[in-house]
Amino acid sequence: MKPLALTMGDPAGIGGELTLRAWQALHARPCPFVALDDPDRLTAIGQQIACDTPIHVVDDAVAAIAIFHRALPVIPVPLATAASPGRPDKANARAVIGSIERATALAQSGEAGGVVTNPINKAALYEAGFAYPGHTEFLAALTGVSGKEIMMLASPQLRVVPVTVHVSLRDAMASLTTDRIIAAARTTHDALRRDFGIPRPRLAIAGINPHAGEQGALGDEERTIIGPAIVALRGMAIDVSGPWPPDTMFTAAARAKYDVAICMYHDQALIPLKTLDMDHGVNVTLGLPIIRTSPDHGTAYNIAGKGIADATSLIAAIELAAQLIAPDEAARDRTAKSRG
Amino acid sequence: MKPLALTMGDPAGIGGELTLRAWQALHARPCPFVALDDPDRLTAIGQQIACDTPIHVVDDAVAAIAIFHRALPVIPVPLATAASPGRPDKANARAVIGSIERATALAQSGEAGGVVTNPINKAALYEAGFAYPGHTEFLAALTGVSGKEIMMLASPQLRVVPVTVHVSLRDAMASLTTDRIIAAARTTHDALRRDFGIPRPRLAIAGINPHAGEQGALGDEERTIIGPAIVALRGMAIDVSGPWPPDTMFTAAARAKYDVAICMYHDQALIPLKTLDMDHGVNVTLGLPIIRTSPDHGTAYNIAGKGIADATSLIAAIELAAQLIAPDEAARDRTAKSRG
Repeated sequence: MKPLALTMGDPAGIGGELTLRAWQALHARPCPFVALDDPDRLTAIGQQIACDTPIHVVDDAVAAIAIFHRALPVIPVPLATAASPGRPDKANARAVIGSIERATALAQSGEAGGVVTNPINKAALYEAGFAYPGHTEFLAALTGVSGKEIMMLASPQLRVVPVTVHVSLRDAMASLTTDRIIAAARTTHDALRRDFGIPRPRLAIAGINPHAGEQGALGDEERTIIGPAIVALRGMAIDVSGPWPPDTMFTAAARAKYDVAICMYHDQALIPLKTLDMDHGVNVTLGLPIIRTSPDHGTAYNIAGKGIADATSLIAAIELAAQLIAPDEAARDRTAKSRG
Repeated sequence: MKPLALTMGDPAGIGGELTLRAWQALHARPCPFVALDDPDRLTAIGQQIACDTPIHVVDDAVAAIAIFHRALPVIPVPLATAASPGRPDKANARAVIGSIERATALAQSGEAGGVVTNPINKAALYEAGFAYPGHTEFLAALTGVSGKEIMMLASPQLRVVPVTVHVSLRDAMASLTTDRIIAAARTTHDALRRDFGIPRPRLAIAGINPHAGEQGALGDEERTIIGPAIVALRGMAIDVSGPWPPDTMFTAAARAKYDVAICMYHDQALIPLKTLDMDHGVNVTLGLPIIRTSPDHGTAYNIAGKGIADATSLIAAIELAAQLIAPDEAARDRTAKSRG
């Protein structure tokens, strides 16, 4: 058994609290993880929020497994300066980045089963020379697959992959191409087979216009951009359906017919996911050579240090990553559940 | 007490079945309605689908009230030719239109409390000279308020008003203006006060870009178009908030903070509504001088005549219209529920 490598995230955010809470929730379960973090700051946070998670400094992943049921194992990544909740400090940017680099290296070497990342604040890192649009692109660069990364959001009820992500809706429409849809769908298909243990994933491809364009009366992207992608994907023997009218494809009856929805823009994917389940959404990066998940929220500076941050999404991210390490077991679990 | 006037809808669709089923569900409740329909075709449908709703021809709304608990009251609107399920016939277009005209006239004269419409097929009516984009625009023209009509979708969990509706996403973005947002929000505000009995309606205005644009980094419509509308609406003493990030504004916690979401495009409104509750969505037309609701689905030719059509949405449409006739009672009901 291998532990997951859990990064520090922005030390002025809620990451440290979440790490301590996640150990409380998971230390008796087969989801071991090791934090790449500053042990002193975790100790301080534990006192501040009255969370008695014991902390144990370790040298490597093997030692982490041995101690996990009794204490939170931490491979030290020292901060340059003490962090203040809610006040990002670029002096600590190097430690934040270093934690991500160390976790990724552990996963690449096979010592860790995968990486789970706490939220970062890109703005605080840009000032220190961080040159990526976000966490995900940084991990793609570290693992040598820049441009192949795909964001999936997964909750117990729904998996979604937005083909276009953090751009304006106008730019999303302008940048949507048949090739991008094909690339996102192929990466998703391969990851669902390999990491999620789904032998023949069913992909539902969303339309982009109301009623999926009504045969062109309400827009033509379904015929000019999305339809050709569906034809091409079928030619690759991938099980795709669509383009579906966006408003009816996320009902319970519709969701039962696919394993993942390939969505054309950010909110088409995120509105149904968060409306159905705000707390248990997990961000999964597909297309990397390593497993990587993260909670579906940010640094939450406004509540950092108060002990009220909700660790549900980080716990779900750790649990999902642990399942992805052993997809066959996860598939058996799912089968058992759907029969039960 | 006044009955609601229920239209025939396309006689080749599921409207007749739904009308018979709705009477079964509602005849013991204070939701009386009168069908503007062909009594012979309703009798034939009842035999075909083995639904024993008794039919009673009446001359006016007063007679309808007297009989409703014992039989479905029908003011005759004869078809030109017998209707075949699933096969629209333009020979009957005049009767379909006539049913809408009669229902509207009853509501305008005060004999009926409002209009509930069964689904029509615009294409079948166009051939017969119908010159409106849809049902709603026809009702606006009949009541002399063309251009003032606003579509609201209401379910037990959420009310949404899309500012742009049946146009492509590209055209929705191009046609979104500050003035249109203000007009939709004002009409909605006035209708929630007058018809829904909400003394000070809280309107949540959606952004249009991911994360509501992140201060311009992901699009500027929030600053150039939506923000100015919010400022103007506040100047009119309307309780508005936003622009909200679209993906998090439909969670249960967020929904508790507003009475209606003003959405920028069709799917932004319809995805959360239908994802939360596919069956109980009701279409409410705001901005008319009469109450008008309709089920949130179409003619369903593919299942017409089979007796399997689900009347849930039509029943919800009738119940909501009955509440809107008596908004004070409805408001008391809601208060009782939220306390209970």
